[in-house]
Amino acid sequence: MTMSPERTLSTPDIELAPTREEIFASHEGGKLSTGLSAPLRHARDLAIAYTPGVAEVSRAIAAEPALARRYTWTDRLVAVVSDGTAVLGLGNIGPRASLPVMEGKSALFKTFGELDSIPLVLDTTDVDEIVETLVRLRPSFGAVNLEDVSAPRCFELERKLVEALDCPVMHDDQHGTAIVLLAALKGACAATGRELGSLRTVISGAGAAGVACARILLAAGATDVVVLDSRGIIDTARGGEKAALAAETNPRGITGGIAEAMDGADVFVGLSSATLPQELLTTMAPAPFVFALSNPDPEIHPAVAARYAAVVATGRSDYPNQINNVLAFPGVFRGALDVGARRITESMKLAAAEAIFRVATDDLGVDRIVPSPFDPRVAVEVAQAVAEAARRDPAAGVTQPV
Amino acid sequence: MTMSPERTLSTPDIELAPTREEIFASHEGGKLSTGLSAPLRHARDLAIAYTPGVAEVSRAIAAEPALARRYTWTDRLVAVVSDGTAVLGLGNIGPRASLPVMEGKSALFKTFGELDSIPLVLDTTDVDEIVETLVRLRPSFGAVNLEDVSAPRCFELERKLVEALDCPVMHDDQHGTAIVLLAALKGACAATGRELGSLRTVISGAGAAGVACARILLAAGATDVVVLDSRGIIDTARGGEKAALAAETNPRGITGGIAEAMDGADVFVGLSSATLPQELLTTMAPAPFVFALSNPDPEIHPAVAARYAAVVATGRSDYPNQINNVLAFPGVFRGALDVGARRITESMKLAAAEAIFRVATDDLGVDRIVPSPFDPRVAVEVAQAVAEAARRDPAAGVTQPV
Repeated sequence: MTMSPERTLSTPDIELAPTREEIFASHEGGKLSTGLSAPLRHARDLAIAYTPGVAEVSRAIAAEPALARRYTWTDRLVAVVSDGTAVLGLGNIGPRASLPVMEGKSALFKTFGELDSIPLVLDTTDVDEIVETLVRLRPSFGAVNLEDVSAPRCFELERKLVEALDCPVMHDDQHGTAIVLLAALKGACAATGRELGSLRTVISGAGAAGVACARILLAAGATDVVVLDSRGIIDTARGGEKAALAAETNPRGITGGIAEAMDGADVFVGLSSATLPQELLTTMAPAPFVFALSNPDPEIHPAVAARYAAVVATGRSDYPNQINNVLAFPGVFRGALDVGARRITESMKLAAAEAIFRVATDDLGVDRIVPSPFDPRVAVEVAQAVAEAARRDPAAGVTQPV
Repeated sequence: MTMSPERTLSTPDIELAPTREEIFASHEGGKLSTGLSAPLRHARDLAIAYTPGVAEVSRAIAAEPALARRYTWTDRLVAVVSDGTAVLGLGNIGPRASLPVMEGKSALFKTFGELDSIPLVLDTTDVDEIVETLVRLRPSFGAVNLEDVSAPRCFELERKLVEALDCPVMHDDQHGTAIVLLAALKGACAATGRELGSLRTVISGAGAAGVACARILLAAGATDVVVLDSRGIIDTARGGEKAALAAETNPRGITGGIAEAMDGADVFVGLSSATLPQELLTTMAPAPFVFALSNPDPEIHPAVAARYAAVVATGRSDYPNQINNVLAFPGVFRGALDVGARRITESMKLAAAEAIFRVATDDLGVDRIVPSPFDPRVAVEVAQAVAEAARRDPAAGVTQPV
């Protein structure tokens, strides 16, 4: 494969890259603040927002708890929750060090989803203690975005939280990534005239993102997905947590490592930071897609991948086709909260991916398989699609469905 | 006693009182929001506030945890914590119904102390579970304002939290009230040429506020404080929680009820919502002070009290001399956070009261014993005084004292 002539891969723009000094300066005092919906200027403002006026509102909620959604900020408030065990590519750096990331996440919720959010970082890594803490705090927020929790604990934590809390819960590293990957794969198919159902896909990495990506691709109609972890291709010989994944994937029952998996594959999805040897690209099917999503260092340099692949995507903002979770999570939570959904279901995630893809189709190309993270239409479209899917899906628990 | 001629007690201004409709309308969607210190407009903003830039900051905090104070919002973030067990005069209405009050409190922190804050309302009333929850969340905030927790649980909760958390913790219903009461008593003394040390003070109510008020008056030099609860004057015959209070108060060892306590008293402090019979005012010492602080209904109508008393104060904004906690808590927390204090100590509370009194002395009068809650000097003066007191008090745990 050669690069198509109209494609020009930009390289990182060194002049534009923020300096260390600039990064630290902009973090002085943190990135968040709390604001008021109305200023308190006079005694009368105080009499409305605080005593004695507020007592009327408290009394009303005491009589009818559902009114809390209407008369408090919780209805649009996402708790961004982490224990700091798998922060970006930095690993287990703890809750304090994870906080700037969670503040950043809250800033993204505000900017793209117009949702308020508070980072809650926890000084415990015990799954049951985290669940218990959030159950106790349940009246304080409207939804939970789990972030940067290590695998496989994140699967158990999300499962238990979904069970324990009557509000939307989503581990973004799993499902946000999966939603955007699916949208990108739809975009790549549309840009190249391929069909999702006929592709052989290799997912390198069976952590939080890898497992969720495999599942959403299968739910969307993919038929041949092979997942690898550090021990190689996951097959039915595996036990424990991986057994379920093995049962759903690897339909041809292949064994071995990355070389065996890549032989004849149409799609490579890198989610493990394990380097992908260049020569394996030559063993893929013609015109493959290479999604090297590890950050900040993709599994293979996108310029190298482009010599062989029809479509190349990364997680980086300085190359085309950035697979960025921000395309999904603000709209997903916004849509779920807008309709008062109790769950974020498979159908809502699929609807989110479809909405992202729909925005991309306006200006589709092999270098434009997903919209820009700054495209203002994305969150709006995703929120609408998610809200509609929630209304139609009994599992979403919307109190007022269509 | 007759009212001094220059005094004019205003009555509640009915036209200005907010309507129920207005109150509910202004609570739609809640009173708080989260904001960003800098907008995210371009890919470069994202690269600074989120990946990859934020990783530098996280790495720095992982290496030196103390940097979290500098590079996150926690350094100026107060958690407003309640279990909803004693909300305003409404009693145990639960965490959801308490949330509008906590949002109001957060709004006051922002308006008067320029501090961010998040309401955390807890769906448990177990003291140890509340402590455990906040210990787990410790990296998420910089200080804890306890609010509307029922007595006597509030004493145990505050004591355990102060022990468990390395940050400022204050139950505002106790100490905020006490600080402002002390400031008001100093103001009343100055306006009438009296001495705090020579006054006989009766405190009706031995709940959260009553106990704290007794303690701060004694710490400030009062020598004769008598406290009553529903069983009458607290004396040394009492056991349990009240025994300690009995040992510090009631130096003349009087017994009986409110009539015995009021006989010859110079100051009445109402903190119990028990009605004060008018005739008892005639048995007080000449030119007494009557602080009828129950809200919204004072223990005695201020216009009635003014027929006998030299100084009348209430908790209401529609009468002179409003004893309002907002004079204290924003500056107290601001001062403590400004210097990184680990504790809010007695000396810091006394300094706060002195600062409020100092502002009042600029325009002192029997109807102006405390500043207006909207006087912008108050929080600044209180914060400075508290910060200075913290630096001089080893118990405050300031890392860089004077």
